Amino acid sequence: MSIPAPPVPVFPPAPCTLTSVQGLEAAGVRAGIKASGNPDVALLVAAEPMRGVGLFTQNHFAAAPVRLSRRHLSASGGLVRAVVVNSGNANACTGAQGDADALEMCARVASALGCPVEQVLVCSTGVIGVKLPMEKVRAGIDQALAERSADEAAGRRFLSAIMTTDAFPKEAGARHGDATVAGVCKGAGMIQPDMATMLAFLATDYALPGAGLEEAVRRIAATSFNAVHVDTHTSTNDTFLVLSTQRHPAPEGWEARLEAVARRLAWLIARDGEGATKVTTIRVTGAGSDAVARAVATHVAASGLVRTALFGNDPNWGRFVSQVGNVRGLAAPQRLVCRLQGLEVFRAGEPTPFDRAAASQAMRAEDVSLELQLDEGDGQAVLMTSDLGYRYVEVNAEYTT
Amino acid sequence: MSIPAPPVPVFPPAPCTLTSVQGLEAAGVRAGIKASGNPDVALLVAAEPMRGVGLFTQNHFAAAPVRLSRRHLSASGGLVRAVVVNSGNANACTGAQGDADALEMCARVASALGCPVEQVLVCSTGVIGVKLPMEKVRAGIDQALAERSADEAAGRRFLSAIMTTDAFPKEAGARHGDATVAGVCKGAGMIQPDMATMLAFLATDYALPGAGLEEAVRRIAATSFNAVHVDTHTSTNDTFLVLSTQRHPAPEGWEARLEAVARRLAWLIARDGEGATKVTTIRVTGAGSDAVARAVATHVAASGLVRTALFGNDPNWGRFVSQVGNVRGLAAPQRLVCRLQGLEVFRAGEPTPFDRAAASQAMRAEDVSLELQLDEGDGQAVLMTSDLGYRYVEVNAEYTT
Repeated sequence: MSIPAPPVPVFPPAPCTLTSVQGLEAAGVRAGIKASGNPDVALLVAAEPMRGVGLFTQNHFAAAPVRLSRRHLSASGGLVRAVVVNSGNANACTGAQGDADALEMCARVASALGCPVEQVLVCSTGVIGVKLPMEKVRAGIDQALAERSADEAAGRRFLSAIMTTDAFPKEAGARHGDATVAGVCKGAGMIQPDMATMLAFLATDYALPGAGLEEAVRRIAATSFNAVHVDTHTSTNDTFLVLSTQRHPAPEGWEARLEAVARRLAWLIARDGEGATKVTTIRVTGAGSDAVARAVATHVAASGLVRTALFGNDPNWGRFVSQVGNVRGLAAPQRLVCRLQGLEVFRAGEPTPFDRAAASQAMRAEDVSLELQLDEGDGQAVLMTSDLGYRYVEVNAEYTT
Repeated sequence: MSIPAPPVPVFPPAPCTLTSVQGLEAAGVRAGIKASGNPDVALLVAAEPMRGVGLFTQNHFAAAPVRLSRRHLSASGGLVRAVVVNSGNANACTGAQGDADALEMCARVASALGCPVEQVLVCSTGVIGVKLPMEKVRAGIDQALAERSADEAAGRRFLSAIMTTDAFPKEAGARHGDATVAGVCKGAGMIQPDMATMLAFLATDYALPGAGLEEAVRRIAATSFNAVHVDTHTSTNDTFLVLSTQRHPAPEGWEARLEAVARRLAWLIARDGEGATKVTTIRVTGAGSDAVARAVATHVAASGLVRTALFGNDPNWGRFVSQVGNVRGLAAPQRLVCRLQGLEVFRAGEPTPFDRAAASQAMRAEDVSLELQLDEGDGQAVLMTSDLGYRYVEVNAEYTT
């Protein structure tokens, strides 16, 4: 069966890309890892070692490149000269050979650049449990090393070479005078907090402080990539890298600038969501604690009934409310107020009369807002989620067979 | 868009139904609550008060009939003369009027039978947040009271009048000499532990012991209705009633006989699952505790990627294994073994070579087995889940609009 895919949304290109950051070169080449022949090896190289922070999947089956990059960041004290990425193969569940292959990818880049191997990070994304075709990977890395460039086009080739099931490229960024904050990411399914089948790279030429940087990156992730919920599944390969070439003094408010780019990237992931037609932002307020608020948001986002109602533009508040009712530890659920696109649909245990047709029409938007207002404290949470449509089933039921 | 529904499975009728239990009469009538005109008021009446135990939804927005039936069981000391049910309207989120309507349904039956009102229980299932059309309900109850009969056909009319989105009727039962254990239920979506949009009625003429009966019913639910996972959503109306007319001495092993019927009913709910094509039984063994085993099974069952792979007959072990990897608190996930239909597909961090085509073919079955064998203790769990196909989206995206 073939389902007509929803129209692919077209977003204007970001005003800058990774290579807009001073001191960065990039490449993206076709190494033949993907059967499709699409680009599948990407490389990012800095003229001097960058300051880097990485957040990685907590999955017990973390892939070889994840485990190696974690070690490299630790051994290098957060210095990063290059990042090499392949798509089409996750190098996960690949045993000792997988570890050796990840290390070889880093070593090949380090040798060409004349830097310590621990200053090279590696990411992989794609099918799990299949060993990397290393001959192709080696040739791809060599080609990427040879072709790397600081052109904008090279930055966009990097992006195209990290994509897998993405329906569209995901980039975001802003220029602030001479300085740049730019990011790219890939990810469409297997997305839930924390992280996703997601690779995200955020680069800047701001000179970021060493002290407290990891905590700042965690805060940024909390409101961006860790606030996206697609399908109750996290992956073996999720990686979020923040890299800085340290060229410009970082102003007050640098964290907010990085966060804005990260949030846009996360929104794009939710918007893709393998057949999604919109992004629904679930805002929970008034909970007993932030943790309870997050539990409410996650419960609602995880419900297949909620997500099909969003797909069908169905203002079916009964599904939203009954799912709130399943969260343990609510003190006063009877005071719940529920709003859909700003329209109150439920208050104090009963539906608020509203115009269903108008509400349904209002749900036909790129951005849908679902507010769940409790009245038992100051706890808050925000979660972005995809809707669940036919295309999600098609994409995922027919992936490997 | 209209998706061809998967073929509705045909199961042989159970060898008995509710009215096969000595002392029980039933009815099912068309009261006009449902726009479709299908039967929507059901009644079960015992000649003498039965011994009854009820388990109900834990949802904070438990419907009026749930709250009332809980009070009645408590006030009557577990004596039940009749159960009145309507489908097509859940009488949930209906405020004080909803409470009054539920009470009126019980009172009307009690008055006709000449029994205390607290000996009548009430269940509703259907749309949330709409007040009951009480004129129709009253007429339906009167008709059901007039038509009630101990015929087998009357038992089956009861069943047809409790159904909502069910694709097929769900009944199970066994005769043991002169005694009978019979059950019927409704439920297809909004199913996850604990309970479901599910009404289940299990009746027997065994004389069940008063002491320990509630604990026994909880044990029975744990391996049946609370071991079903469809869509990470529990409802406002779930009710599981066990009723006994106390005619025959209960033999050793009566609990297992009731459990067998409950498990079959739960399997039928998972099999329906709004477009499901099979039931997948997830068995987790060797976990650190039963709670961890249950967390593993629930995580795997909740994944959209897992459930679409099951729908697509895709032996995509990477999805099963990576989801196990997301459960916190595993001591030795690297020793996980995964089997699909008895076929080992993953062991010790790497895939076991297997014939994908043969595995996919083996997944085209009514019953699919997914075993996840850990090696860190004696904890076990079993969960039955539906697969996620196009039809689930269609049924649920286009429900109220």
